[in-house]
Amino acid sequence: MLSKNTLKFIKSLQQKKFRREEKAFFVEGSKNVTELLQSDFEVTHLLFTEKFAREYHQLIPSSGVNLVEVSQKELESAGTFQSNDSALAVAKIKENISFELKSNEWAIALDDIRDPGNLGSIIRIADWYGIKKLLISNESADIYNPKVLHASMGSFTRVITYYTDLEGFFSKGNYPIYGAFLEGENIYNVNFGQGGIILMGNESNGISQEVSRFVSQKISIPKFGHAESLNVAIATSVICDNMRRQAHIQSKIKGQNG
Amino acid sequence: MLSKNTLKFIKSLQQKKFRREEKAFFVEGSKNVTELLQSDFEVTHLLFTEKFAREYHQLIPSSGVNLVEVSQKELESAGTFQSNDSALAVAKIKENISFELKSNEWAIALDDIRDPGNLGSIIRIADWYGIKKLLISNESADIYNPKVLHASMGSFTRVITYYTDLEGFFSKGNYPIYGAFLEGENIYNVNFGQGGIILMGNESNGISQEVSRFVSQKISIPKFGHAESLNVAIATSVICDNMRRQAHIQSKIKGQNG
Repeated sequence: MLSKNTLKFIKSLQQKKFRREEKAFFVEGSKNVTELLQSDFEVTHLLFTEKFAREYHQLIPSSGVNLVEVSQKELESAGTFQSNDSALAVAKIKENISFELKSNEWAIALDDIRDPGNLGSIIRIADWYGIKKLLISNESADIYNPKVLHASMGSFTRVITYYTDLEGFFSKGNYPIYGAFLEGENIYNVNFGQGGIILMGNESNGISQEVSRFVSQKISIPKFGHAESLNVAIATSVICDNMRRQAHIQSKIKGQNG
Repeated sequence: MLSKNTLKFIKSLQQKKFRREEKAFFVEGSKNVTELLQSDFEVTHLLFTEKFAREYHQLIPSSGVNLVEVSQKELESAGTFQSNDSALAVAKIKENISFELKSNEWAIALDDIRDPGNLGSIIRIADWYGIKKLLISNESADIYNPKVLHASMGSFTRVITYYTDLEGFFSKGNYPIYGAFLEGENIYNVNFGQGGIILMGNESNGISQEVSRFVSQKISIPKFGHAESLNVAIATSVICDNMRRQAHIQSKIKGQNG
């Protein structure tokens, strides 16, 4: 049975303030919980239904984790999902590690992405396109927000996020930075190099002036119709796809010629 | 001042049942309301704040529309937005017109898209990529759902939606249908023709078996990392981008050779 203290503790983790204090967060639903259990995150609590235990018994740790079998109702009272018949897990937040980028590696930088759903989607997109590092401005949404984790569909376990002051960070490094603007070079013609940073801006205001002066190349997605703009997660996916596509085609041509 | 009857009427339009009965829907916020006022939809009611009137006075119709100046509080009580200091408008639903596709034209077909946010995003993406027609299975979300309209960011005024039974529809026509699957041909290698239908499936189950037998070409977005899948709106944008990109590059080559 779920104790009042554990319930209170988990509910407190819906707030960033308590997540920071406790250095802990939780995820819900079978997709995120099973991904978490298979990752290198340190899991401290696992609340699960009989159904979850039947389906995923091989994933349930035998020691070191506070295991509680619960009813669906208890699970829903602890988390944020309207309906959850599988599990909820609490894990330790990873400390910000130092950010490094090899010359042939890609990262995505986010300048003030406020919407948790957008941040979670971008984490999932980064994971799909094999981009393992995310630089996130301090004003952006918190990746341990339950809505971010939910939208990431487990990809938060595979993408390293690094919160920083982008202006200060860019002023010290020397990375090729491809910044998304409404009036940049058409991504169909952009020569993406071997590696660098794809920079995306705020939902309403785009990339801030302070950060935009570090952009090496302004890039744009060509428009064929009349919508004023694309959502930032959509734009991120299209840019990542064009970058990966170019490298894919180039390596194919190289293969044919060599 | 907002009458009790008008308030009750607008609130009822949050439900599909009443939207069908009244053949009416509403949109909220300056983006959607200003787009609606500039479209060929028949607007019946416009609720607006003093602020909206100051900014957009040239868009406020001089006749034929029930005009009510309201407070922000009244606006919020009538609609679904937590915060709305601009406007809300009611318009007539357009009747399903008959669907036709020229041989050099593209449409998107949606097989059971349940999430209103996804449907709204896809409408916005279609509008960006100049795709004016959407075929939607009857089980999908309703485009006049306030969440769909909100996510479409005004693009619902420029994209024609046609609800139908996809199986019946496809069995009668003879269109090239490019269906998105997890195991289809890499979109980087697909030869998109001059026109046809891009078919996207349900959020959890993909394209249904009944509909998939009409697919002329199964297509897939290549994966470079480890996410299990992409969200359906994200996948739609990447596919549309690849289709438009190919036509763009081909017309450039043609231009050079001619």
